[in-house]
Amino acid sequence: MNRHSPSFAPQRPVPGGGPRPYRVLDAAGLVEVLAALPDVRARLGGKPEDWRARDVADGNLNAVYLIDGPAGGVCAKQGLPYVRVAKDTWPLDANRTRFEAAYAQRVAPFVDRLAPAIHHFDPDLLLIVMEKLEPHVILRKGLIAGRRYPRVAADVAEYVAQASVNTSDLAQPFETRAADLALFSQNLALQRISTDLIFLDPYAASDRNRVSPPLEPWAAALRRDVEVKSAVAQLRLAYLTKAQSLLHGDLHSGSIMVTPEETKVIDGEFAWVGPSGFDVGNFLAHLVVAWFAKPRQPGPAEAVAPGRAALEQDIVDFWRIFSRRFLEIAAEATPKGDGLPESHFGDAIGAARRAELIAAYLDDIRRDAIGFLAAKVIRRVVGFAQVADFLVIGDVEQRALAQARSLAFARSLLVEPERYRDVAALAAALPKFDRAGLDPEAVP
Amino acid sequence: MNRHSPSFAPQRPVPGGGPRPYRVLDAAGLVEVLAALPDVRARLGGKPEDWRARDVADGNLNAVYLIDGPAGGVCAKQGLPYVRVAKDTWPLDANRTRFEAAYAQRVAPFVDRLAPAIHHFDPDLLLIVMEKLEPHVILRKGLIAGRRYPRVAADVAEYVAQASVNTSDLAQPFETRAADLALFSQNLALQRISTDLIFLDPYAASDRNRVSPPLEPWAAALRRDVEVKSAVAQLRLAYLTKAQSLLHGDLHSGSIMVTPEETKVIDGEFAWVGPSGFDVGNFLAHLVVAWFAKPRQPGPAEAVAPGRAALEQDIVDFWRIFSRRFLEIAAEATPKGDGLPESHFGDAIGAARRAELIAAYLDDIRRDAIGFLAAKVIRRVVGFAQVADFLVIGDVEQRALAQARSLAFARSLLVEPERYRDVAALAAALPKFDRAGLDPEAVP
Repeated sequence: MNRHSPSFAPQRPVPGGGPRPYRVLDAAGLVEVLAALPDVRARLGGKPEDWRARDVADGNLNAVYLIDGPAGGVCAKQGLPYVRVAKDTWPLDANRTRFEAAYAQRVAPFVDRLAPAIHHFDPDLLLIVMEKLEPHVILRKGLIAGRRYPRVAADVAEYVAQASVNTSDLAQPFETRAADLALFSQNLALQRISTDLIFLDPYAASDRNRVSPPLEPWAAALRRDVEVKSAVAQLRLAYLTKAQSLLHGDLHSGSIMVTPEETKVIDGEFAWVGPSGFDVGNFLAHLVVAWFAKPRQPGPAEAVAPGRAALEQDIVDFWRIFSRRFLEIAAEATPKGDGLPESHFGDAIGAARRAELIAAYLDDIRRDAIGFLAAKVIRRVVGFAQVADFLVIGDVEQRALAQARSLAFARSLLVEPERYRDVAALAAALPKFDRAGLDPEAVP
Repeated sequence: MNRHSPSFAPQRPVPGGGPRPYRVLDAAGLVEVLAALPDVRARLGGKPEDWRARDVADGNLNAVYLIDGPAGGVCAKQGLPYVRVAKDTWPLDANRTRFEAAYAQRVAPFVDRLAPAIHHFDPDLLLIVMEKLEPHVILRKGLIAGRRYPRVAADVAEYVAQASVNTSDLAQPFETRAADLALFSQNLALQRISTDLIFLDPYAASDRNRVSPPLEPWAAALRRDVEVKSAVAQLRLAYLTKAQSLLHGDLHSGSIMVTPEETKVIDGEFAWVGPSGFDVGNFLAHLVVAWFAKPRQPGPAEAVAPGRAALEQDIVDFWRIFSRRFLEIAAEATPKGDGLPESHFGDAIGAARRAELIAAYLDDIRRDAIGFLAAKVIRRVVGFAQVADFLVIGDVEQRALAQARSLAFARSLLVEPERYRDVAALAAALPKFDRAGLDPEAVP
């Protein structure tokens, strides 16, 4: 790859240098490191011998441990110099964890109660020690188990609205976002993964794609579909160049931990300054995936209709609350920003116009989000990183049928966006795609 | 200003540190520095006592000297810790010169013959030693003198087309642009100047604005005009967040040196990753300014009509050649880029679609460029940095009349963009605005 290296470009330290060299920690090594941190020691209580460290890694990339002591627990996450689920074959810059820590620090003032507290970050070991979330579960697992989380739509809406406004030029002098750009534009290893796995591989032949045999006709149709690839090209360029706000970058149902009362967004290592619609679309995509998977997932048949109705309600509520909060937060924040400044829009006529311009900005986010939603569904079906929502369906044909229907829906979002003028219309259209099947030519 | 400082954000060295401390050089000090550079010494020939250094500073910001020796000459430009034309009142980060040097290095492979050769860059003294351009003159001065430069439209078109394609994701893996973003997003002092002087001050009360008394009604009308301010808000957000390609950032007729045979673009210290239409619109804006100024500038009356016709031709030629070269360069470069990759658009249908997508990308540049053109005209009339094209008109009323007509034209571009579907239509519309005057309400 032909990379430009300006002579005074900032350089990231490489794991391995420094007085406390980077090493992959096992449970015993982790306890030793934590024992040297007075704050963490106090949280856990007792002596290190009394602590119990459990490997609970669940995502694709990192090591994650829960450590319990007599007084309490913490969670420790270490960046590894490879992709955890593909250790021998996929090296990956462990410095991603620096960006995760920086992201958490950056958004904390806005999303406080909606993310775990960070107790400690070790930049040499690339180790984040944070609040242990208990009895929280990963939203994706809860949805698969048929549970309902009445707060999650509103909480994620609040999280994304706060971050979208407050890290954009609507709410701050542009220098603040430029500092985010200068920093997070170095988060390249994970952006290459996003670019390849979301926007490139699913529409091309790639060894990384995992297509189940009954879905081959659909995968081949996507590779041939010049309308789909054109829409995806616009989304890819927007993802790469539309530097609106600081994104979480991986806001799917596996990055959200929930109880019925509480929502916590985790795993910000894909942080990137990009189009605000990206996080919005990602969250919606995983509700859509859950909706299409629901009837064929293990569980009582009578739970399907209410489960789907709840997901439809979450989709509509999420957008409704996101929209409302975005407008409210932006209305309050814009006098501080370069985007729609007080000196231009401070009088009565200006204030009315500013409200209209914020609404247009939000409408642009909606259009982007619907496109990203579609791209996110497709990559979860014919790309590398499959999702448990579908994988728990044991019967390959039944699973493929549910997946094919989600592809038909996603394709429609990409090539007929004018049919989805609001998110409610999108939710209302879902049932129609239950008539799609394994033949990509026979779509309703 | 509330600036975010992530804990491991890259820091710029501050002038003053290091073994060769930064100091403002006078002619003698400059000769001493150059005498220590073997390559420069060889170019100049003889002994340092034989060299002649002349202060030729012309722009607003920096110190510039020409140094001649028995064998040849060089040009030396030093960044100053203040704005040269407002030394006592306007401190300015001298590190801007680092970005100018990095910009020159970055675009050199694409624009080779269209920019001066850089002989040496001293990052401590913030001193660039470059090719002495002789007998080149600043394009603005040549145009005011009524001279014609038959190559300039084509050469600047080639320069901007090369930079717009080759530093965008059309032509390269996104990591290359991300490296540009990480670097040039730190070029904040000059971006604050651009943001304030182009996009904020002209539409608000500001002590920096220099409005001649007969133009006060126009300036007040712009401050009140919510349609203009709304259009400018979109342009400002695009300038700040649409990270398409590496911009020169200040590509007006004062940043271009010409002979009838040769064109050299200088002064890239405003470099920034932004919308490609920005440089395009800036160059066009200064041809438009020259067009409106022409009839009232000193000079023979019979030269006005051919002078204006030549400018109209330059406007049309510039866009025609820029468009053609953009399409040609992009058609060749896209297989190397993440934007429209070979794996999606490599077959015959894909190649045809790729050409359409590139044309749509160019059309978006055109729309942006027309907006930026308008903003650039307005800032040169009611903002801080006025231009000689108008200032050489001694009679204040006559000058204001020419300026008011350019404002009427710029306003029309901003609020009726649908009337300017191509740049030829824009050029053809110019004469109509000769009917505008000092009353902003009485516009054709």
